[in-house]
Amino acid sequence: MGHIAKGGRGRPRSEAVERSIVEGVLKLIEDGEPLAEISIERIARTAGVGKATIYRRWSGKEELLVDILRGVDDPPPELPGESMRGDIIVCLEHLRRRGVNMRSSALLHNVFAQMKSLPKLWEAYHATVIEPQRRVMREVLRRGMENGELRAGTDIALANDLFVGPMLVRTTLRSDDPLDEGLAEQIVDTVLAGLRPTG
Amino acid sequence: MGHIAKGGRGRPRSEAVERSIVEGVLKLIEDGEPLAEISIERIARTAGVGKATIYRRWSGKEELLVDILRGVDDPPPELPGESMRGDIIVCLEHLRRRGVNMRSSALLHNVFAQMKSLPKLWEAYHATVIEPQRRVMREVLRRGMENGELRAGTDIALANDLFVGPMLVRTTLRSDDPLDEGLAEQIVDTVLAGLRPTG
Repeated sequence: MGHIAKGGRGRPRSEAVERSIVEGVLKLIEDGEPLAEISIERIARTAGVGKATIYRRWSGKEELLVDILRGVDDPPPELPGESMRGDIIVCLEHLRRRGVNMRSSALLHNVFAQMKSLPKLWEAYHATVIEPQRRVMREVLRRGMENGELRAGTDIALANDLFVGPMLVRTTLRSDDPLDEGLAEQIVDTVLAGLRPTG
Repeated sequence: MGHIAKGGRGRPRSEAVERSIVEGVLKLIEDGEPLAEISIERIARTAGVGKATIYRRWSGKEELLVDILRGVDDPPPELPGESMRGDIIVCLEHLRRRGVNMRSSALLHNVFAQMKSLPKLWEAYHATVIEPQRRVMREVLRRGMENGELRAGTDIALANDLFVGPMLVRTTLRSDDPLDEGLAEQIVDTVLAGLRPTG
């Protein structure tokens, strides 16, 4: 959970406090509490801290939950920047790893399942996690078009969906489908080559 | 809502009864009742019928809700069968139309958002709606490989995700993305041709 306890800020025992808050939220979720019912007040009571202690660290429940969700992620990947193909594979591999991590955690799976019916949480997750990833992908594709790796005139938004769509379908919509190592590379190479017979 | 009132079965006023049951469910959902809280008993009370009347028509809450969800769909498409390309476009266009219909109904959007956290409902929807569609796609792809429209040796499951993934990402994960007419054709032709520069 690397991102969560960014810690420090000169306060003694700050990390311990943050950890107890995060653990309080996780306990409520594990106990089957619907996210919609979890208030900052309940979290504070469960963690044994005051509400102000939470609000000093997170602006609200959504930001706190998004931080917990980001904690399951590997850190955002460094792009090698040598080729569009290589950079897209790194981006898709990041999505694949998130899918693998999610599958191993019933708790986080449960949180994601509820998220779509909680518009404020979904928006916060979208703004903090998804939108930055999409910006990176668009930039990678734009550079690929410039250096001739991507067919001239390709619709960048469509190209993005052609690459990430097959991976997201498996990670988010179908929890039984394989997420084998090598899937990112397989998707990228097949989308680049096309499915029409050669020659 | 074509599929819902299949009607008849020799009972007088059967369609009217089914309609009042379906309307009872819709009313409960519109009133903001979480799906998890809606029981056959509540539906019966809201519709002004006995529980047995409901169980004569649907084996349980899940089947009733799936029937309502199917009601928003266009009927399953007839495949022209002239080419793999044409048949895949018809399948994707069906997904696109469902997405368009969903976006115009806050109520159905709400039901789908809740569905992922209700495993029994999700399973029933999967078995009744999604799995038959996937079978059709796999069959279309297999025929395409046989008649030489699809590159020999292509992984059928991967090919399926390459075609449906970009459409499903837009219809299910991103409610703001465009679902323009012609999108199905654009996806199919781009996946077939690939994104690598030609020549």
